[in-house]
Amino acid sequence: MTYAAPIERANLSKPSVDMNTLLEGIQTCFDCAQACTADADADLAEPQGHEMIRCIRLCLDCADVCLATGKILSRQTAFDPPTARAALQSCALTCKVCGDECEQHARHGLAHCQTCMEACRHCEQACTTVLSSLPG
Amino acid sequence: MTYAAPIERANLSKPSVDMNTLLEGIQTCFDCAQACTADADADLAEPQGHEMIRCIRLCLDCADVCLATGKILSRQTAFDPPTARAALQSCALTCKVCGDECEQHARHGLAHCQTCMEACRHCEQACTTVLSSLPG
Amino acid sequence: MTYAAPIERANLSKPSVDMNTLLEGIQTCFDCAQACTADADADLAEPQGHEMIRCIRLCLDCADVCLATGKILSRQTAFDPPTARAALQSCALTCKVCGDECEQHARHGLAHCQTCMEACRHCEQACTTVLSSLPG
Amino acid sequence: MTYAAPIERANLSKPSVDMNTLLEGIQTCFDCAQACTADADADLAEPQGHEMIRCIRLCLDCADVCLATGKILSRQTAFDPPTARAALQSCALTCKVCGDECEQHARHGLAHCQTCMEACRHCEQACTTVLSSLPG
Repeated sequence: MTYAAPIERANLSKPSVDMNTLLEGIQTCFDCAQACTADADADLAEPQGHEMIRCIRLCLDCADVCLATGKILSRQTAFDPPTARAALQSCALTCKVCGDECEQHARHGLAHCQTCMEACRHCEQACTTVLSSLPG
Repeated sequence: MTYAAPIERANLSKPSVDMNTLLEGIQTCFDCAQACTADADADLAEPQGHEMIRCIRLCLDCADVCLATGKILSRQTAFDPPTARAALQSCALTCKVCGDECEQHARHGLAHCQTCMEACRHCEQACTTVLSSLPG
Repeated sequence: MTYAAPIERANLSKPSVDMNTLLEGIQTCFDCAQACTADADADLAEPQGHEMIRCIRLCLDCADVCLATGKILSRQTAFDPPTARAALQSCALTCKVCGDECEQHARHGLAHCQTCMEACRHCEQACTTVLSSLPG
Repeated sequence: MTYAAPIERANLSKPSVDMNTLLEGIQTCFDCAQACTADADADLAEPQGHEMIRCIRLCLDCADVCLATGKILSRQTAFDPPTARAALQSCALTCKVCGDECEQHARHGLAHCQTCMEACRHCEQACTTVLSSLPG
């Protein structure tokens, strides 16, 4: 995510929250979307099949919500705090629930779920920080 | 959206909400995502340029949130009501705010904004109905 | 997809291909994206688990490519035929391969794969028709 | 994109191309999708309005294609070289055309378009490298 900082800084629309907080939110949303997409695929390759179903489903949902939220945060022009807040709340909760599910599988030794859990925890935390910085 | 009903009905995972309510939610989310994508583009082609900026921005956000929500609703397996609720709340609010913005431009004669407003109102209503049907 | 036609018609940017051909392309892309998202989920719920892995993977890819293509076709302003052509070729091929995989499972009695195959065939055909209508 | 490497390495499905080549492709696709999303927004905030329309449109298309391609590359299970090739060709071309457009605006002093051009060039190059490494 080498490009987020210079583009956001050159945007004539000034951000509604602290720039570093915003950049952390953007980066963790895109990172978590990639991690969840990859983890759903790694789950699919596991021999225990049906035990991974909830993890696959939550990872797919989490990737979708993280991408929507990461794109919303990437836009500074005519930023709308109430709708951004709702997206961030949805993203933080989905990351929490997906991270909890990944944690179960990490405890049983699945390294890809351990990494995906870290991505979810990081994104949940960053969304919570952006939420507490939103105006209004 | 000819395909949603037969696929959802053939899914061995039974839906957590009334099937017709669910199908209406899925269809309106995908329809609204397409309408908002097309309306942002039609706004871009308008000569009044800067007056359309908030509409373009909200349409892009609304398309992102509607697609995430429409995909979440399309999945019946290991459906998670709390995260679905948060996504639906985010979607209903974004459709409300985007619909209100489109309504302003519809009053000034922009037919594409009138149609997009209808898509947003319909999707907001369908999300609200799914929300009131969610278990838990 | 009740909204595509009036929005595209009200767009001041005129489409680069015949309007009905374009609308069919847009609608089948969004419909196929929904069908593939739902079919991947229905596959996940099947007891034969590992036999469905290739179908799940191709459905996830096909949903991603159909959404990208459906959004590109929804934009008429500064339409760029060469990049649209590449997206349509990618979409037509992915629909062909995903439709072929779904057909295997449809033959073994999976009704959701039968429906998804129909969505893929329809979208492949519509993309091919748009391709043959593109200028340049 | 701290998470891509450990998840891809822990995936029981082995990648079809060299791991470092694959990881570079995944990272540049997600990075370019974020850059293009942010650049379209920064373009919208520019006072010269209508001169930015082609850049906004191409950035929106490029973000869509990069996300689809980045997600396809993130999946190693039942990887399908022909459809991946078509997605990569579409992505490389769209990055080329979008990068060329951004370059025009960079020459007129728009720093956000300069950065977005770099993201597009990097992603185009990485897609071309993955293309030349694909089996078959």
